[in-house]
Amino acid sequence: MKLISYQHAGKARFGAVVNDEVVELSGRLAAPDLAALISDAGQLEQARAIAAQGVSDYKLAQVDLDPVIPQPRKVVCVGINYVKHAEEAGRKVGEYPVIFQRYSETVLAHGKPLLRPKVSTHFDFEAELAVVIGKGGSHIDAANAMEHVAGYTCFNDASVRDWQFHTHQYGMGKNFRATGAVGPWLVTADEIPDYRKLSIQGVLNGKIMQEGKLSELAFDIPALIAYISQALPWHPGDILATGTPSGIGFKRTPPVFLKDGDTYDVVIPGVGTLSNPVADEA
Amino acid sequence: MKLISYQHAGKARFGAVVNDEVVELSGRLAAPDLAALISDAGQLEQARAIAAQGVSDYKLAQVDLDPVIPQPRKVVCVGINYVKHAEEAGRKVGEYPVIFQRYSETVLAHGKPLLRPKVSTHFDFEAELAVVIGKGGSHIDAANAMEHVAGYTCFNDASVRDWQFHTHQYGMGKNFRATGAVGPWLVTADEIPDYRKLSIQGVLNGKIMQEGKLSELAFDIPALIAYISQALPWHPGDILATGTPSGIGFKRTPPVFLKDGDTYDVVIPGVGTLSNPVADEA
Repeated sequence: MKLISYQHAGKARFGAVVNDEVVELSGRLAAPDLAALISDAGQLEQARAIAAQGVSDYKLAQVDLDPVIPQPRKVVCVGINYVKHAEEAGRKVGEYPVIFQRYSETVLAHGKPLLRPKVSTHFDFEAELAVVIGKGGSHIDAANAMEHVAGYTCFNDASVRDWQFHTHQYGMGKNFRATGAVGPWLVTADEIPDYRKLSIQGVLNGKIMQEGKLSELAFDIPALIAYISQALPWHPGDILATGTPSGIGFKRTPPVFLKDGDTYDVVIPGVGTLSNPVADEA
Repeated sequence: MKLISYQHAGKARFGAVVNDEVVELSGRLAAPDLAALISDAGQLEQARAIAAQGVSDYKLAQVDLDPVIPQPRKVVCVGINYVKHAEEAGRKVGEYPVIFQRYSETVLAHGKPLLRPKVSTHFDFEAELAVVIGKGGSHIDAANAMEHVAGYTCFNDASVRDWQFHTHQYGMGKNFRATGAVGPWLVTADEIPDYRKLSIQGVLNGKIMQEGKLSELAFDIPALIAYISQALPWHPGDILATGTPSGIGFKRTPPVFLKDGDTYDVVIPGVGTLSNPVADEA
């Protein structure tokens, strides 16, 4: 099942995507939002039954998408998690995953513009697979960690390289307004029996810039979920962005940066395509 | 005026502290919470009038305090911002402030236990002055930045040193459950004509461990507000923790770490004393 969050008539709603149609679920279920829906097996069951009837409420192209989880409680990001990307970045994969924090307010939906900051000339792309947590928990064993995954979506961890290297802590360059694109939808975990078989591409104006396979993750999804759960609890709707493969703009010769009018797509066959235009910050 | 957030009869409320009494403001004002109150000069005026009547609703000792802003939209932290602390940490103050991100879910109130993580033996204290933003904005000029400050509170940026050094990005060690203490109250900016005249102490079980003066900040509050506002907007209720002075446990000989049964106080005369016990994570 593909699940989306969106606005209709000024209200936040959620629904299922069936072909190019939207079956509205909000109002037909007790769950108030998508984070609540994916945390509850019974509600998910009901959602499947409603979606299976396939009665369209809207055309997908007509709804105003929100980020898959509109206000995630937290967005956890992983750096240097593909060996080839570690090499291009001049880093080695270490004993522990490199984790950084993104404020939820920096996320934006499929189709909305990634904002190239006024204060930067080094605005870069990072195509990633993101996990959406369904079942919360602390001190999760890696052996059971996949039970906590509600599903998958695409993520663009757009990065402000010049600010990223202002100091030895690069989080500020990862936390600009409207730079964390997520979507277009969440594909529930039952549709992806083995995420390691997924591949990912980052595509700038139709040209492939980044390529990777999810089997190449230095720290796999169970390991990441388990590690982070030692520090703080996972909650339904939390987002884990699993890192970007090689090919980022900053490390190309010559470097390539995002500019007004560009479009960047994160393509993960079986999950979806997240597409965002780039616009200069007003 | 001193403002608090608290629970009473199972509901989130806010009020003013007058001597050791609480004058409840929620329900008597249009503002739904403290973040909304401090963003609105008219509501603040009304709050002052109600507080001035001084009719006590509760004894302060009897209310169950929440973090000053119970769910801040963001908590922005600054590292290496006192020259002497930079020296003890083996760092230099650079051209830009060292910023890191704390998830809001890690904050806890005055009086609540700082949780020493199961997975750490290096749980350390960091006494800080925190700013609470009242007026939002982007691209704020440092010359006008103090207009955006609603008030001040105390912060303990308790840090998991062993995890902090798992990788070159130390954010994970700054984002453990129940490690960001904030409170006890917000003192409105009108009561602190010049924050540079404040001094701060960190006190472990009655013994002074950390001392500093706010005039010593390498990047002052206007500079921090302005810098961060270039990346993303400030919103009412956002918290900016301004960094810790020297004397942290990790750099002492021998090192001193927090343990179950300890109490750590952040003392800022004119602002207040934030006191938290330490307990082992269950």
